Amino acid sequence: MSADSPDLSRSRAELLDAADPLAEFRTRFTVADPDLIYLDGNSLGRLPVSTAERIRTAIEDEWGRGLIRSWAAWIDLPRRVGDAIAAGVVEARPGEVLVGDSTTVNLYKLAVAALDARPERRVIVTDDDNFPTDLYVFQGLAHARKLELRIVHSDIDAGLDPAVLDAALDEDVALVSLSHVAYRSGALLDMAAVTAAAHRVGALILWDLSHSAGSVPVPLTSSGADLAVGCTYKYLNGGPGAPAFLYVRSELQEQLQQPIWGWFGQRDQFAMGGMYDPQPGIERFAVGTPPVLGLYGAEEGVRMIAEAGVLRLRGKGAALTSYLVELADAWLAPLGFTVASPRNADQRGSHVSLHHPQAWQVCQALIERGRVIPDFRTPDRLRLGLAALTPSFADVWDATDRLRRLVEAEEHLEYPGERSRVT
Amino acid sequence: MSADSPDLSRSRAELLDAADPLAEFRTRFTVADPDLIYLDGNSLGRLPVSTAERIRTAIEDEWGRGLIRSWAAWIDLPRRVGDAIAAGVVEARPGEVLVGDSTTVNLYKLAVAALDARPERRVIVTDDDNFPTDLYVFQGLAHARKLELRIVHSDIDAGLDPAVLDAALDEDVALVSLSHVAYRSGALLDMAAVTAAAHRVGALILWDLSHSAGSVPVPLTSSGADLAVGCTYKYLNGGPGAPAFLYVRSELQEQLQQPIWGWFGQRDQFAMGGMYDPQPGIERFAVGTPPVLGLYGAEEGVRMIAEAGVLRLRGKGAALTSYLVELADAWLAPLGFTVASPRNADQRGSHVSLHHPQAWQVCQALIERGRVIPDFRTPDRLRLGLAALTPSFADVWDATDRLRRLVEAEEHLEYPGERSRVT
Repeated sequence: MSADSPDLSRSRAELLDAADPLAEFRTRFTVADPDLIYLDGNSLGRLPVSTAERIRTAIEDEWGRGLIRSWAAWIDLPRRVGDAIAAGVVEARPGEVLVGDSTTVNLYKLAVAALDARPERRVIVTDDDNFPTDLYVFQGLAHARKLELRIVHSDIDAGLDPAVLDAALDEDVALVSLSHVAYRSGALLDMAAVTAAAHRVGALILWDLSHSAGSVPVPLTSSGADLAVGCTYKYLNGGPGAPAFLYVRSELQEQLQQPIWGWFGQRDQFAMGGMYDPQPGIERFAVGTPPVLGLYGAEEGVRMIAEAGVLRLRGKGAALTSYLVELADAWLAPLGFTVASPRNADQRGSHVSLHHPQAWQVCQALIERGRVIPDFRTPDRLRLGLAALTPSFADVWDATDRLRRLVEAEEHLEYPGERSRVT
Repeated sequence: MSADSPDLSRSRAELLDAADPLAEFRTRFTVADPDLIYLDGNSLGRLPVSTAERIRTAIEDEWGRGLIRSWAAWIDLPRRVGDAIAAGVVEARPGEVLVGDSTTVNLYKLAVAALDARPERRVIVTDDDNFPTDLYVFQGLAHARKLELRIVHSDIDAGLDPAVLDAALDEDVALVSLSHVAYRSGALLDMAAVTAAAHRVGALILWDLSHSAGSVPVPLTSSGADLAVGCTYKYLNGGPGAPAFLYVRSELQEQLQQPIWGWFGQRDQFAMGGMYDPQPGIERFAVGTPPVLGLYGAEEGVRMIAEAGVLRLRGKGAALTSYLVELADAWLAPLGFTVASPRNADQRGSHVSLHHPQAWQVCQALIERGRVIPDFRTPDRLRLGLAALTPSFADVWDATDRLRRLVEAEEHLEYPGERSRVT
């Protein structure tokens, strides 16, 4: 092995694993099938061992035995899990994060609150590679409120060029909303610089943290970010359909009003007063009865991510994705794959996409024959998520090795090229 | 015992239980504390034995083992549980009911859809005894859209007088929204007559079924009702914070558009298309990622209610509430209680409220000393819920007996008169 040629042996992966300070966290997840390599923890995080037990207790003891009396404990969950996210997952202060509703509903609530706070401005800015549900929410709002939706172009591999965004900003812009990490390429935006650009023209900014929270530092406070939403079932391992979180900077909370006035946002809720009078603080962004089981799933997941620590997660995520890029360059480029993510680890989150003309067929073959679970992303991307607590360096080596063997043998061509509707 | 004096012996309750065709369903619920009498199943239904196991399987097998692949099964849950509600809980056709989001969020979505369908009309009609979250949603919409919210007066014991409603309806009314069963008094509205009254002036009607679904027949189809929402954690026993359902009459689905455009409402969702194009049918009223664990809880609860059958549930609910009224007249009226619900079983749902000047103190004493769980409702009501699958006639006898003994001994006066914030 010369200094120029990288060490591509599996034993190097094993050495990297031996030096991994987060390695012991792998034992805290349920692994039902050790031969399966799961590279989709950025879409649905794995099951923490403690979560099954926590939810069992919630069902049998709190619901079954405590019955309605357990609301004394449940009622604080949206705020408690929010504060845990603020303390250990994103940079935020106590009372700035609340958990409940879906990411999409939260995005709607905060976007309306922001637009109502800039009534004289008529433009929402986002980018064309934003996650589809974000685009749909803004299309709906632009339609309902007769606003201009200004969609700037992002490179689907490299992400949004700050100069392109800057050129779209002016004093008609009420709201800028972007994903901190792009769902397809993994491109990571500079939160402080983009927030400052929005603020220069007097716009509010609303970040979607779904693909960043739990994998990279999220500097909400120090960036001066106004608003954010994020997902708990991806990197936070909260479980399928676990509720989303929302962030509202303290200084803005009393000025903003979300549009869905409901009893969980009401001051002294059980007085059952006839006139809506929103709670002080972050609870004014709550709406209806919170999903208790999903909240416990989120709480367990958040607890473990906070214990691992965002900086360690970031370090390992960068190392895993860089290792994958190195193997892909050596083994997969000759087979028609190209890296469809930023090549500099500082500019991407914890997943990497690979472009291949038959990506859909490759994806099916990799799952069924390769026993590796990636994600397919339109139009022709294989997305490999490296949620730092679960895959090992050896998993990355094995997954890439299985992938190259499949494609070398052209096994993927045995799978249909027509995408099925559920992926 | 003469023909005029009712038989108030406990043995009569035991005879009624012996003749109860639904008695065996009591064994299908987890009862951790047999001495505790739970009369709050209308607020949080009891835990079905099968639910703990179903959710354990969903967590360990589907999430833990199946991982992301389990979305192939999960993605149909909102529609599948909706169709189960349509088949066995409310009168509706397949494809008219969808489960997801909270009751409040669903109410907002359908109310906006209705208002957008009557853009030239400027009035929302509801009543002052409607559930607070409903009132808040309409206040928020009236505020945002500069509409008139016309709040008609309901009697808090007897419910809404149809003549009062009629007098408030005219051709400016876009939307009428009422609770089918009033949350405090239990007063049951005539769905067909009220729907017809709304339709006579060209308004759409949106029913809140939270306190009726699973306890009384809900004739949506035959009444010609347009829209409805309802709760799954009360009479449907779906568990704390289980998602709500919404109903949209088939003929209206393509004409209506809900305001929160999200990826679960998108046609061919995983094509990740950049332009919102809502699904055909009831799925266009979906928004974000559905709460999988809560949906399984709802599915188990709905299955049991459907098996019991709405007519049997209605019959037993009427018998239980009538029995409670009879005992209250005999034992509690001399202690200062009055029945604060319709006295005719045809005009009430499956709960009864009792007025007492110290209701809050009585409520605390009844829980702690009496080992009976009712609900307190402002300003001075003790609400006793008789979800037909769980309390027995003997439970009603025992609860009323414990209540009269406590108040006779003035034990409730030892409790604070100032209401605490969480009840």
